Amino acid sequence: MDLKKVHHLSIRVYYEDTDAEGIVYHSKYLNFAERARTEFLRSYNLDQSTIEKKYGLIFVVKLINIDYVSIACLDDYLCIKTKISKLNKVKMIFSQLIYKRKNLVAKLEVTVCCLDKNRKVARMNNQIYATLNKQERE
Amino acid sequence: MDLKKVHHLSIRVYYEDTDAEGIVYHSKYLNFAERARTEFLRSYNLDQSTIEKKYGLIFVVKLINIDYVSIACLDDYLCIKTKISKLNKVKMIFSQLIYKRKNLVAKLEVTVCCLDKNRKVARMNNQIYATLNKQERE
Amino acid sequence: MDLKKVHHLSIRVYYEDTDAEGIVYHSKYLNFAERARTEFLRSYNLDQSTIEKKYGLIFVVKLINIDYVSIACLDDYLCIKTKISKLNKVKMIFSQLIYKRKNLVAKLEVTVCCLDKNRKVARMNNQIYATLNKQERE
Amino acid sequence: MDLKKVHHLSIRVYYEDTDAEGIVYHSKYLNFAERARTEFLRSYNLDQSTIEKKYGLIFVVKLINIDYVSIACLDDYLCIKTKISKLNKVKMIFSQLIYKRKNLVAKLEVTVCCLDKNRKVARMNNQIYATLNKQERE
Repeated sequence: MDLKKVHHLSIRVYYEDTDAEGIVYHSKYLNFAERARTEFLRSYNLDQSTIEKKYGLIFVVKLINIDYVSIACLDDYLCIKTKISKLNKVKMIFSQLIYKRKNLVAKLEVTVCCLDKNRKVARMNNQIYATLNKQERE
Repeated sequence: MDLKKVHHLSIRVYYEDTDAEGIVYHSKYLNFAERARTEFLRSYNLDQSTIEKKYGLIFVVKLINIDYVSIACLDDYLCIKTKISKLNKVKMIFSQLIYKRKNLVAKLEVTVCCLDKNRKVARMNNQIYATLNKQERE
Repeated sequence: MDLKKVHHLSIRVYYEDTDAEGIVYHSKYLNFAERARTEFLRSYNLDQSTIEKKYGLIFVVKLINIDYVSIACLDDYLCIKTKISKLNKVKMIFSQLIYKRKNLVAKLEVTVCCLDKNRKVARMNNQIYATLNKQERE
Repeated sequence: MDLKKVHHLSIRVYYEDTDAEGIVYHSKYLNFAERARTEFLRSYNLDQSTIEKKYGLIFVVKLINIDYVSIACLDDYLCIKTKISKLNKVKMIFSQLIYKRKNLVAKLEVTVCCLDKNRKVARMNNQIYATLNKQERE
């Protein structure tokens, strides 16, 4: 990963995130990753509730590949590293790594696209695209 | 409880419902109870998505008292008994009991009121009220 | 899919499953799919809480690929079709399709492996393997 | 509230916390409140995973009263104020207020007690009690 472009979010594991095996429930990593993408976008002034009001667009997840590399437990402090690995006006692909200190816990590739007000697939707004494209080249 | 009026819903406990202590996470009983109230209403043809489209009203929870009497675990099969214990056009109060076979697991009192399209407190629609009031007196 | 081997589970979408876009939150499909795999295993008398007590083994998700084909909403009634597409003593791969009536909503490939009591990767127990292998060839 | 003793935790509302009405799903406030109690305890070096390993005790919720005063939405930034309003060796009662800027969103009273390794009700450990009692009188 090119560290310049990578966004970091730290997340604490609470009881709500764990299951009866004493480990983080597998779908919760998708929640963590979504929080990280949200904060990544917010760091470029792209609040999703604002985008919806202003442009009538919402981002939705189209594809996820997730590799569960190791386990995380109650009270663990995780760090999520997020970057955009591919961007065009039809979709963007996020690469996300979840770490527990130096150990990789999970690895995600998340393809996101846009829907319009009628929940039909739409192209990304020019301004959003320009903002994200600029950060990608920084 | 007057058994004539009581609605029953059975629910299986999955990994997603448990936490690192090996028991059902405490907030999940509110989810279970909401599923039961939804099915209770559906049994009177009161689908919440239909009510919203037709009358512009949504039901929201105003107050909850919950007493956690005993624990439930992975793979347990729970039964939720739901009845309306008080009803007027401003609010309805549900009494809900969650059982694991013959053992009481949790006891809830849930006060529900209506919001209109602008998310302001509203009186219940006459037709909804009549339907619920009729069932209450049955 | 070879229909003989496919397990079906129906699931109702409740408020807890939806998000502010009015659609099912993307990580919830992983929960639905896990419920379906659990019932699939239970239909072969492979309750996960029993397997853990008896053999000291737990099943954990290693990899997931999920393709979100269309959206689902509040009150929708979904059907999950589950089958094992690959099985050996190190892992099993589940193919899962989530339908809303005749429309495909999501498509998952889920690789599951075993951990022992110390949360180390383990081979599947012979009896579990035989049970699953038998069903696969039925 | 006596401000000296009150613990503050800030929480961002993400998509996972909202439902199809565009508001925070009612059971999620219990999750938020549990995160706040966890951080309150951690601020007195009372990590729950450590307490379980060291003393064989877990804290469980016995009773909750929650009053939903107003709604919260996607991207809202909430502040949870937590204090212990009653403490003895059998139970502790937390008073928790959830704010969205100056507006009260929800008000909780949460009674917590201890379970031992066999999941039986137990008295609080002397050291934990002393630590909490000291803070209460500070």
